[in-house]
Amino acid sequence: MWTMRSPAGSDVLIIGGGLIGLAAAWRTAVRGLSVTICDPAPGSNASFAAAGMLTPVTELHYGEETLLSLNLASAKRYPSFIEELREASDGLDPGYREAGTLVVAFDADDREVLSELHVFQQSLGLKAEWLTGREARRLEPMLAPGVRGGLLVSGDHQVDNRMLLAALFAALERDPKVTIVRSKVAELTVTGDRATGVVLEDGTALPAAQVVLSAGCWSGQIAGIPEELLPPVRPIKGQILRLAIPDVFKPFLSRTVRYVVRNNHAYLVPRAHGELVLGATVEEQDYDTAVTAGGVYELLRDARELVPGITELPLIETRAALRPGTPDNAPLIGPTALPGLLYATGHYRHGVLLTPATADGVAEILATGTVPEALAPFSPRRFEHHQK
Amino acid sequence: MWTMRSPAGSDVLIIGGGLIGLAAAWRTAVRGLSVTICDPAPGSNASFAAAGMLTPVTELHYGEETLLSLNLASAKRYPSFIEELREASDGLDPGYREAGTLVVAFDADDREVLSELHVFQQSLGLKAEWLTGREARRLEPMLAPGVRGGLLVSGDHQVDNRMLLAALFAALERDPKVTIVRSKVAELTVTGDRATGVVLEDGTALPAAQVVLSAGCWSGQIAGIPEELLPPVRPIKGQILRLAIPDVFKPFLSRTVRYVVRNNHAYLVPRAHGELVLGATVEEQDYDTAVTAGGVYELLRDARELVPGITELPLIETRAALRPGTPDNAPLIGPTALPGLLYATGHYRHGVLLTPATADGVAEILATGTVPEALAPFSPRRFEHHQK
Repeated sequence: MWTMRSPAGSDVLIIGGGLIGLAAAWRTAVRGLSVTICDPAPGSNASFAAAGMLTPVTELHYGEETLLSLNLASAKRYPSFIEELREASDGLDPGYREAGTLVVAFDADDREVLSELHVFQQSLGLKAEWLTGREARRLEPMLAPGVRGGLLVSGDHQVDNRMLLAALFAALERDPKVTIVRSKVAELTVTGDRATGVVLEDGTALPAAQVVLSAGCWSGQIAGIPEELLPPVRPIKGQILRLAIPDVFKPFLSRTVRYVVRNNHAYLVPRAHGELVLGATVEEQDYDTAVTAGGVYELLRDARELVPGITELPLIETRAALRPGTPDNAPLIGPTALPGLLYATGHYRHGVLLTPATADGVAEILATGTVPEALAPFSPRRFEHHQK
Repeated sequence: MWTMRSPAGSDVLIIGGGLIGLAAAWRTAVRGLSVTICDPAPGSNASFAAAGMLTPVTELHYGEETLLSLNLASAKRYPSFIEELREASDGLDPGYREAGTLVVAFDADDREVLSELHVFQQSLGLKAEWLTGREARRLEPMLAPGVRGGLLVSGDHQVDNRMLLAALFAALERDPKVTIVRSKVAELTVTGDRATGVVLEDGTALPAAQVVLSAGCWSGQIAGIPEELLPPVRPIKGQILRLAIPDVFKPFLSRTVRYVVRNNHAYLVPRAHGELVLGATVEEQDYDTAVTAGGVYELLRDARELVPGITELPLIETRAALRPGTPDNAPLIGPTALPGLLYATGHYRHGVLLTPATADGVAEILATGTVPEALAPFSPRRFEHHQK
């Protein structure tokens, strides 16, 4: 790739500074390439709102076995990724926490949902332990007496996505090969039949040998990308709350608690520093990011059915952000049909989990031109023929 | 009072710049006296959080007939008070809105509560009209189909307390006789057996001929006040939400809607500019001002029973503030046993409503030494013998 470096530009230009774009920049710079990231407000949308669950086993869905492999690989990569980031950021703690995850059911129907999930997990050789309601309450005494049983997945963990963002920013700031430009990209520049950089809203041209599009749900809106190549991402709104756990109630919960209540799925993620993340709605509302009375109501209603004690906790933040959804709920990672243009977008509900695998994979492709085998199923090219 | 003016001080020093203190300062300055208001953050507690209902008839309680008279007098004074304030603030709109109030019931028991209220209102000669559920829904189409009947009180209105605060600040700023000192009072100064000013936290002495204590729920915590005279006020926490009414839903509600749901009382107050105030919890939690998951949950739960459409509205603010409660739920207004010290505090849930009557009355007392007849029942001296 070195031969393609533009004299006045970067080896790589990344459109979008969410976790995916920032981590990809870091891993790419580690390979020796120069990187420019363009984002008017890096780390402020889904990456900031997220709960940071690293729960490939408890979030397993039918028909997503291929995605499961990538999810598991990324979860497995997390500890070393975190250690490398800690070093690169001069000792910042990225907030990774291995405490396991418990999924509990509210009524008999919900227990059936869990039971089916358990059968599916076992059929794939995944480790999950069935618990009675009493056993679940022994692990988490704040659970309601009526809880109908649970699944303990001791290998599903969490990372504090805001601490992770802070560590990534620190690592990037320390690396002279990385530049963060806080501006919006107006257009992809195509020269001949190759992507050769971008133009910012103020007209500034930023040439680059290769361009990575990691703009989340806005990835389909960049001018200059040939229409048949535009990634089919759409915004999926999520509303999420943050509660505080006063010292008198600590630890409150000792691990992530996911729950099924009348077939609604939600979760509580306790942070080491005393925050409790309560999420999340899943809504198709175009680009609307309003926190609504109904969204907040439903999150609180369902949470208090399983963990009544949350009513005592201070509500310290309400937020809505937009996940990048795709037609098959899987991300788009890798080269496109346009030379010099790569995608790393469409991570939907798995952006935090898939950050290491995506960042490593993108860096590998940028540095060597070779797509890692694990990423092959997620090629953006699988959608080309769907488009007019 | 002019003869008592301290050469280096003000005629009047007011401790506390909530609506009561600010309005009292304005009315007092109109009388020609110089006024200093001390508050580290004027207009920031209950006055800012409040919903601004002017609803003496719908908020009537048994055993509070004396308070009712003052409430009605203050409500009657509102239109002229507002017009004078508009003039004094060089044309600012204080947000007064005469749109009436509707109270509705959720179930048969709640309807019985309303029915008893109606009988009581009628026995006192107050104007309130009984409506069937269908009639209530004709007035307010957003009401749930199941609403069980209602009371229409066309004389109960509202003021936007934040616009009112802004107008008061503007009026005070234009008056050279008024000074706002953004500092906390550390101590009342007593010279001989007379209040003669205050000392601020930084040690500054502010002499004054007369001192008014209007520090809301903190009124009992001012050092230097003889212990047997300390006002028996305590903090009553209220959590309150603000929703936005997008244009597509306007007007949403055309008047204040109060409701009784499973014997809980709450309300929705629509502002002319598209805000909907949803309040309020009533909690004895000492000085805690945390917004809690449970408080927000209950407010939303009850509101959506009567007005299901609120679930679509953006939730734009959550807040908690402290009302000054008193043993008999009535305010303390007037001279104390210590010459030079007056109280204007303990307005509990009626601070906004009672602002004109209190401000006019305090100004009258300060300027003439005479307590208006309407205020006589609310003398702070009624509590002196209760204290040790």
